[in-house]
Amino acid sequence: MSDYETQRVRRLQELMVAARVDYLVCRLPENVVYITEYWPHHGISVAILPQKGKPTLFIPEVEADWGNPKWAEIIPFGWALLKDPDLYTSYRQHLSEIRDTLGLTSARIGVEKELEVVATTYRHAEPIIPAAPWAAMLDEVFAGSTLLDATDLMQSAKLIKTSYDLERLRVANELAEMGTAKFLSDLQPGMTEVQISAMVEGTIRQKGAGYKGARLVWAEAEVASGPINTTKANLLIPSTDRAIEEGDLVMVELATVMDGYYSDLTYMAIAGEPNDRQREVHNAVLEAQQAASRQMVPGNSYEDPDIAARKVLDDAGLGEYFVHVTGHGLGFRFHESTPFLMPGASGTLKEGIVSSVEPGVYIPGFGGIRIEDNVAVGRDGPDFLSTPRQPW
Amino acid sequence: MSDYETQRVRRLQELMVAARVDYLVCRLPENVVYITEYWPHHGISVAILPQKGKPTLFIPEVEADWGNPKWAEIIPFGWALLKDPDLYTSYRQHLSEIRDTLGLTSARIGVEKELEVVATTYRHAEPIIPAAPWAAMLDEVFAGSTLLDATDLMQSAKLIKTSYDLERLRVANELAEMGTAKFLSDLQPGMTEVQISAMVEGTIRQKGAGYKGARLVWAEAEVASGPINTTKANLLIPSTDRAIEEGDLVMVELATVMDGYYSDLTYMAIAGEPNDRQREVHNAVLEAQQAASRQMVPGNSYEDPDIAARKVLDDAGLGEYFVHVTGHGLGFRFHESTPFLMPGASGTLKEGIVSSVEPGVYIPGFGGIRIEDNVAVGRDGPDFLSTPRQPW
Repeated sequence: MSDYETQRVRRLQELMVAARVDYLVCRLPENVVYITEYWPHHGISVAILPQKGKPTLFIPEVEADWGNPKWAEIIPFGWALLKDPDLYTSYRQHLSEIRDTLGLTSARIGVEKELEVVATTYRHAEPIIPAAPWAAMLDEVFAGSTLLDATDLMQSAKLIKTSYDLERLRVANELAEMGTAKFLSDLQPGMTEVQISAMVEGTIRQKGAGYKGARLVWAEAEVASGPINTTKANLLIPSTDRAIEEGDLVMVELATVMDGYYSDLTYMAIAGEPNDRQREVHNAVLEAQQAASRQMVPGNSYEDPDIAARKVLDDAGLGEYFVHVTGHGLGFRFHESTPFLMPGASGTLKEGIVSSVEPGVYIPGFGGIRIEDNVAVGRDGPDFLSTPRQPW
Repeated sequence: MSDYETQRVRRLQELMVAARVDYLVCRLPENVVYITEYWPHHGISVAILPQKGKPTLFIPEVEADWGNPKWAEIIPFGWALLKDPDLYTSYRQHLSEIRDTLGLTSARIGVEKELEVVATTYRHAEPIIPAAPWAAMLDEVFAGSTLLDATDLMQSAKLIKTSYDLERLRVANELAEMGTAKFLSDLQPGMTEVQISAMVEGTIRQKGAGYKGARLVWAEAEVASGPINTTKANLLIPSTDRAIEEGDLVMVELATVMDGYYSDLTYMAIAGEPNDRQREVHNAVLEAQQAASRQMVPGNSYEDPDIAARKVLDDAGLGEYFVHVTGHGLGFRFHESTPFLMPGASGTLKEGIVSSVEPGVYIPGFGGIRIEDNVAVGRDGPDFLSTPRQPW
């Protein structure tokens, strides 16, 4: 392993030492990515990390063949073909062997006990989740050891992105912006919301694999248009067959995932030329977004970007329409659990923290405008992972 | 509620009576769809069904606004905006109210205790799963009642599709076939695997919303090409940037989901004209697939379609390359847990059971060919939900 590749693993191992966690045994895709740099296809791969040395990765044979993870020792297991044992038979066997080899009779082992929001795998049509059967099996195999919830430990590690992580997130954002560039150039009245979804998702899908080392890429583009649908778009957007009309606001909320690295962007455009009010509201939201981004510096609190955004929108008379948070952590998931940039948030911004910065207003009768970029806290100021926007 | 809409709910309620389950409290998207016909956006909606009468659906306000589920009494709750309480605060409040209103002090309540493989929501970039925190909250709110695992009960209900379900699955398959038709008509040497993915997914995405009552549709198309990638395609397919060459076998493994109803198809094509060996192997697999499909009649065992497919491929000298099952249940998930059409499978096919029928062979140096349709057991014989294929 090169130093470059392992700064992340070494950082995690230091946190393990501090928390007196002897081993991590993780199955959530986001944690497998973090520990081994391998994005599981199905969600059944398992990563094991000691306090020192390389991780081990249990992986279905057919994935081992494709995936070739560089950071881990690979233990392939047969799965799902007629010749293969049941998945949990394989888990029990391999984990018991590891336990016996390492002499884990009374270790402190970090596992995933709390999960509801999870990152997806490459194959996203049917998630496979480490739930109750996994927990029961771990209790059985590691009887005698102490199973600790590693959720906070893993998030503490992910919170501070390494330079390697930031480079991967920049590539994920470049891919996302191939989709948003297509949106900006090709948007026309008469297109439907789902047509735009398909165009943006398809552009990223087909340009993704092979781009700057990217292997597996897909995107989900949610599209809202016109005064009603964009006003509702503060939380969710069911892309419909509504046809865009001349002068409509159009919003694309875009999740892009590349080999387990997430980009989360929101783009706005007008089908035609913006009118004065659209221009005014858009530029106020942009100003709020830029003011919030400027607060992404070491030593500020998690609340400071939110305060900055809210002040701009209050001053513009739009504060009451800004009904959600200013941003959320992301990178190994579309939403990481820390930080949230919002009123009352405690916590201090540190170099390497990545957040969305996405103020928005949703004005009945007019429509909704949100502008979202991904911004890292840099040593000397905000470090945009996506491309800052221009006023209309 | 019309009789037509509620044949499914009434059937489930009969099974509840037989199992002495007083209420169902479900959060998995597939179970919310089954009970209320509402496909959750985020995976946080909750469906409650008594033994008699309509279901109740807890749903985020913004989803209630869009979703308008017809089968259920709606209780919207605020979620995720600055004004809203924490999700679990809302769950506790609403479930406690329901408990007190119904006087549930010592009821038998069916909940989801076993889950690993789950159906997705519309918004698939980040699943939200009812995991350990949900189980702990149910234990607390329903202390005094008996919480039973409803997994088998729900699958028993889903196993036999109603005429309503079959109609929805036909529409999901029609949408899927818009994508496969595009694949068959537009495939050309020089296209990459990911280009084909984007084309197929995009065609379905943009034609889906609004088609025959469909509201929310997306698809995942996995594409393998050429002798190496199609040989590996027995379990998983990471669509790559490989360019298709003249004469290549190309496989599209296609998951389509429409409002919570799943289609699972595999299509084969050649970039150009098939050679004699490709034609011979393809037609043997097709013959096996048709032989298996003819066994989808009431009274046969789950094994019979598999035996029929294996016999054809054995006779063609290809049996050793047919390394997976012949089919799996589907409809409310991409893979339901019953039936599996495979060697040694017990269980009896009944009218309304739906399975994929998908024999395939994977021959090193030659490539892989799989043909997959979705077939229901009809009263008098197989009922294809997708369009049967033709020989090459």
